[in-house]
Amino acid sequence: MSTINDVARHAGVSVSTISNVLNGRADRMSRDTLQRVEAAIAALGFRPNRAAQQLKTGHTPMLGLLVPSIANPMYGYIAREIETSAQERYGHRVVLGNTYRNKEKETGFFEDLLAHGVRGVIVISSLVDEEHFESAVQRGLVMVSYDRRATPGAASAIDHVSVDNFEAAHLAATHLIAHGHKRLAFVTASGQTMSRSEKMRGFFAAAEGAGLRAGARVIDGSTNSEYGDSEMADVGRLLAKRIAADRRRPTGLVAVNDLLAFGLLAGFREAGLAVPADVSIVGMDGLFLSALTCPGLTTVRLPVPEMARTIVERVIGRLADPGIAPGEFLFQPDLVERESVAAPGKPARVR
Amino acid sequence: MSTINDVARHAGVSVSTISNVLNGRADRMSRDTLQRVEAAIAALGFRPNRAAQQLKTGHTPMLGLLVPSIANPMYGYIAREIETSAQERYGHRVVLGNTYRNKEKETGFFEDLLAHGVRGVIVISSLVDEEHFESAVQRGLVMVSYDRRATPGAASAIDHVSVDNFEAAHLAATHLIAHGHKRLAFVTASGQTMSRSEKMRGFFAAAEGAGLRAGARVIDGSTNSEYGDSEMADVGRLLAKRIAADRRRPTGLVAVNDLLAFGLLAGFREAGLAVPADVSIVGMDGLFLSALTCPGLTTVRLPVPEMARTIVERVIGRLADPGIAPGEFLFQPDLVERESVAAPGKPARVR
Repeated sequence: MSTINDVARHAGVSVSTISNVLNGRADRMSRDTLQRVEAAIAALGFRPNRAAQQLKTGHTPMLGLLVPSIANPMYGYIAREIETSAQERYGHRVVLGNTYRNKEKETGFFEDLLAHGVRGVIVISSLVDEEHFESAVQRGLVMVSYDRRATPGAASAIDHVSVDNFEAAHLAATHLIAHGHKRLAFVTASGQTMSRSEKMRGFFAAAEGAGLRAGARVIDGSTNSEYGDSEMADVGRLLAKRIAADRRRPTGLVAVNDLLAFGLLAGFREAGLAVPADVSIVGMDGLFLSALTCPGLTTVRLPVPEMARTIVERVIGRLADPGIAPGEFLFQPDLVERESVAAPGKPARVR
Repeated sequence: MSTINDVARHAGVSVSTISNVLNGRADRMSRDTLQRVEAAIAALGFRPNRAAQQLKTGHTPMLGLLVPSIANPMYGYIAREIETSAQERYGHRVVLGNTYRNKEKETGFFEDLLAHGVRGVIVISSLVDEEHFESAVQRGLVMVSYDRRATPGAASAIDHVSVDNFEAAHLAATHLIAHGHKRLAFVTASGQTMSRSEKMRGFFAAAEGAGLRAGARVIDGSTNSEYGDSEMADVGRLLAKRIAADRRRPTGLVAVNDLLAFGLLAGFREAGLAVPADVSIVGMDGLFLSALTCPGLTTVRLPVPEMARTIVERVIGRLADPGIAPGEFLFQPDLVERESVAAPGKPARVR
């Protein structure tokens, strides 16, 4: 079984360099050195010694991961990237909790982690109220939040890792405008979350910039059911019917995420409208499933693997060194063009 | 904060009855009593006391959950049901591991669990070689396996919970036959797993029963890429192109699972064949996404919530009482009819 010395020798670096990588301080070395170390770890199948870690750091090498629901393909994707990164790079296991965006469940999860001596947690929540996060941090949890921006001007006790949601929606809207769309809508589920607000701002900024603010609006709805994974898709289906029945309907839609876009596609199909001939749609997330829809969904891809690596690196690093101040890490999205966008068709027809 | 006594009083039962429910011995009472207890637990927001559990049972109230990849929507669904059940009914947290069907990763996960004092694990693996499971059990792990049948005639140290895969494929094939299909194919990814073998047997048995064995075959393929979540869908897409190019193509397809069916749908669309006009498809799993495809996918639904409850009940129960012998629990699937099956069209046309 390989030791840290073996890895250092194999990579041609010092033991303390290996230690830095294992404890999330990879920023202290060149990319080249980091790659040599990671290659050595992989080549030797090196697995950090649990007991030694526990003695040294005073806590169990596990991380908590809190998601609304792991059955939602986007959260499954992110969770897979996070867990794989934690496991392969840092030898940490992941305790998973589904919280359905329920504050009591989130708080209960934090309590359980602390009771188990697990002091690092990654939160995918997006509730507007972050107060219970700050309390958990005061009780000793090192926390990294995904998909929320930090509150401007306020020092935060937690890291924020997210994609630039403003930019994502801006990209999507600009793409529709470039195809000639003048009647635009941002389609979403009812209820405010920080990422939705950011996306809306980006959407309206793009419309404004093209002189199309007057013809741009938000279309939202809900299914009045309990939080469920099919909910986003159900909302999309519902809203597609509503849009199809509107004689002055928008022609270019930005969907808040791919799941809602999948629902829109199904709903328009059932309502007898063709995509993109009658209505164009741009999704958001970049799920692998978006390549399989009918037609293939043009979408804005989030750099999930890179964000997951940063998330894990930050929590491991701050667990090892409490002196590191929390920060904000904003990632850029990119557009994946497929077949769901075309120039707006003839004036709206209702079948 | 409610105690076990409060719950007993609320439900009108004895404390030992509540204890039986919390420790997975719910089979010792009537369904009516069980429901009263669960209602009381929910009404009072009762959460089992961690420290007491740890003292009493000698182990951390966590369970391990091993999946090939949580980014695969089917595994995300199962994991969500399992984690929610473990959390809400038994106050257990779940440690999640992605193993990509890699034996070393699976073994490493078992070691980590044991090192953390976690003695119960749920395994979604389907590798043909189960030997490392039996070793892990010998070292003290209580294990429940999903989607594998027990080896007939051999006593097993682990529980097996699965759907009747033979019946699932039999249902699917029978549905196609009932619509008049005579040229049938079972479409799958290359590589043997127990569940695929069972499905193939059920498929051929249905064909045989209708005197159609000669016109029934397996069509399989692979993408030669590393295990990935889009792999199943990619294989489907690849095989659709192959089938479309075959002048003597089958008209009725049973897809090994919904993800592969999604790929088939996309592939046929790209190849210019219509579903179900040119080719009919039945999927398997019953993912919520199967309602959104184009056309809506007829599929065989697995009773995932019920299987998840049984999985968790078994592992909790056997942790509390090592005297309980492992068993096999087979669940029945049902057909969900949508729009992807019709009578076979005119003789095969190649566009």
